[in-house]
Amino acid sequence: MKNRPEIVIVGGGFGGISAAKALRKTNCNITLVDKRNHHLFQPLLYQVATAALSPGDIAVPIRAIFGDDKNVRTVLGEVVSIDKTNKRIHISDDSSIDFDYLILAPGAIYNYFGNERWKSHAPGLKTLKNALSVRERILISLEEADKLDDPQDRKKYLTYAVIGAGPTGVEMAGAIAEIAKRNMMRDFRNIEIEETEIFLIEAAENVLNGYPEDLSNKAKSDLEEMGVKVLLNNPVKSIREDGVELENSFIETPNIIWAAGVKASPLLGSLDCNLDKMGRAFVEEYLNIPDHDSIFVIGDAAHVKDEDGQPLPALAPVALQQGKYLAKLIKKRESGKKTSSFKYVDKGTMATIGRAKAVADIRGLKFSGFLAWMLWSVIHIFFLIGFRNRFRVFAEWMWHYLTFKRGVRLITNEPDGSQTDSDDS
Amino acid sequence: MKNRPEIVIVGGGFGGISAAKALRKTNCNITLVDKRNHHLFQPLLYQVATAALSPGDIAVPIRAIFGDDKNVRTVLGEVVSIDKTNKRIHISDDSSIDFDYLILAPGAIYNYFGNERWKSHAPGLKTLKNALSVRERILISLEEADKLDDPQDRKKYLTYAVIGAGPTGVEMAGAIAEIAKRNMMRDFRNIEIEETEIFLIEAAENVLNGYPEDLSNKAKSDLEEMGVKVLLNNPVKSIREDGVELENSFIETPNIIWAAGVKASPLLGSLDCNLDKMGRAFVEEYLNIPDHDSIFVIGDAAHVKDEDGQPLPALAPVALQQGKYLAKLIKKRESGKKTSSFKYVDKGTMATIGRAKAVADIRGLKFSGFLAWMLWSVIHIFFLIGFRNRFRVFAEWMWHYLTFKRGVRLITNEPDGSQTDSDDS
Repeated sequence: MKNRPEIVIVGGGFGGISAAKALRKTNCNITLVDKRNHHLFQPLLYQVATAALSPGDIAVPIRAIFGDDKNVRTVLGEVVSIDKTNKRIHISDDSSIDFDYLILAPGAIYNYFGNERWKSHAPGLKTLKNALSVRERILISLEEADKLDDPQDRKKYLTYAVIGAGPTGVEMAGAIAEIAKRNMMRDFRNIEIEETEIFLIEAAENVLNGYPEDLSNKAKSDLEEMGVKVLLNNPVKSIREDGVELENSFIETPNIIWAAGVKASPLLGSLDCNLDKMGRAFVEEYLNIPDHDSIFVIGDAAHVKDEDGQPLPALAPVALQQGKYLAKLIKKRESGKKTSSFKYVDKGTMATIGRAKAVADIRGLKFSGFLAWMLWSVIHIFFLIGFRNRFRVFAEWMWHYLTFKRGVRLITNEPDGSQTDSDDS
Repeated sequence: MKNRPEIVIVGGGFGGISAAKALRKTNCNITLVDKRNHHLFQPLLYQVATAALSPGDIAVPIRAIFGDDKNVRTVLGEVVSIDKTNKRIHISDDSSIDFDYLILAPGAIYNYFGNERWKSHAPGLKTLKNALSVRERILISLEEADKLDDPQDRKKYLTYAVIGAGPTGVEMAGAIAEIAKRNMMRDFRNIEIEETEIFLIEAAENVLNGYPEDLSNKAKSDLEEMGVKVLLNNPVKSIREDGVELENSFIETPNIIWAAGVKASPLLGSLDCNLDKMGRAFVEEYLNIPDHDSIFVIGDAAHVKDEDGQPLPALAPVALQQGKYLAKLIKKRESGKKTSSFKYVDKGTMATIGRAKAVADIRGLKFSGFLAWMLWSVIHIFFLIGFRNRFRVFAEWMWHYLTFKRGVRLITNEPDGSQTDSDDS
């Protein structure tokens, strides 16, 4: 009789977590590997970046999710290569894990289009570290502005440049516009709210390029009504420490956020299979890579064609459905049952349409956009943690939503070159 | 008629904040300078270090405290020198601020006794950055231990060395001993709680040296009962990346916390006045430095003699009383009233005796020690924020206290040398 099947899942995002959850009470051993110790609700990262939420509000330790599941093992580690022949993954600490089935859900990272040196000036918004870095810049800029009496000197500190007008960029620009309205701004005596200037910079010809045109147009006009200056057809020429260089102008600011393009995790490079121009792996009908029936790729790292031959979008519900599908597939395989191809069902959920909708309904209703996202994530984490904690998490989230806790406006890093108590790290 | 007096306060800790608060509705301009943007409730830092509380739970943006006070200006900056003659302070960004009265409350930093290179291996517990650094080490160590099957390999990751058995060290050692009992540990499958080894290392001959002997003895026996190995008469010879070298032994561990001694902020060096061996400035009866009637030093940075000629301890209630005293002194001076010397009144408060008491009452009552501290800080922050927010903060704190939110077990830093998404910062 065969041993318990070993299923290795790489990535603790929506895809990896949903696959692991669906395999919880089965007769297999699951090892979930992630280079971070937490599952992150990425759609709300921009709220951490604008000091409206704490990291702890949008992240859950992966171990906590599977605390009660005896057949799920969590490993903190970075996968560096995949040995398809021997069915083994290698981790950066030189250990390796053998598998019967491998589910790769490593997600995506920001694409700087070859200009990696821009990264230090313009963080993306994919990780908690990103978000905290952006938060720090914003808070320090406000502090610097507050020290200066001449509005001309203050200008750059109160200028923000968000690069990329996809959903993330649009949300971030909107969230920054909202900072100006928060009580927090009253605490900065020298700053006039009207001095704030927010640029949303996009190389293509519209905001939310690729979405239905009426949605794109509405998002643009709503952002403009909030005071955001939307610059279209404006590819970035260069990003420097002191600002953003466009074709015909230079925006002086230390507050630059990159939301301009994603590419799939470079881990896929070790799979030796075809990748699309965003680095995503082309997968077959069972979400498996070609010529291998037990290695799968899902989520933002996978190029899965829908019925029209178009790749499925990089959205959470896609990854969630794929994770659940694979769990079913594996169960069927193990019990010799008939399997079927993956088929994405677009339920028109709040998350799929909701993000664009939330974005579109900005005027006076951004609030409900935020509410929609908060509910989405509350529900998501709610069902993630387990019954025992549900009440607590739910109440906590509702409380935070209602009270916009101020405690997160913290600059926790030490000032550079401080003469005292300068911690290394 | 004289202009409004300019009062500059350096330091947003207990001393600086209490002085500023007491001067709120007076006819003077207050400028509060701190190199960090938040007021920190230091006594609970060890709870952030053991992932029981979030940074946002124990820190408040200084601006938020004085949001409604028109005569209080907050400046984020590091004071680099003090010009006594011209009554001016210089800040690291090359700006300067003139004063009529200067209150220096810059606090203390950890003393590595000349061995600054030990700092990167053994962070202290004075700042949020410290606490988050310790938290990260502890969480990563647990993750590393969980990957290993051989208990011998795991040993060092489950070993902790706290250096210095003063109140901070004792609290930290106790808190680590408690981690082992938390639900969290069930999530690490490979680790047996009994494998955890905690060392509290002290050069002197007792724990809480300087406190009443029966308290010291009780603290020691209670810690030992919790499983902490207390090593007395054991000065540290050297601290390396892989462990602590004592006279006759070596403790192999990456988890080293420094709580072995404090010294006053080096800023006092620019005062050109006598300092004690901890770097504290000797002050006179009005808490002023010698030969200057309008520069004052309070809190951990001041050497203030009590009636027996002994220096007052570096505790929060001392700084609080001193801050309030100076506010009164300044008000009296400005209105030509008679002033009196500073006299510390030891109310035997929960904080003065309470810390030792909380520490002493460890067995089964450490819980009430924690409760005592939580109440202390709730009350402290409660009255700090202002009526509008009191209910919210109070409810939030009680909620956290009751629920030990898991969300803070987050490693937010990116893994070193990660191939993907490696943020500079």
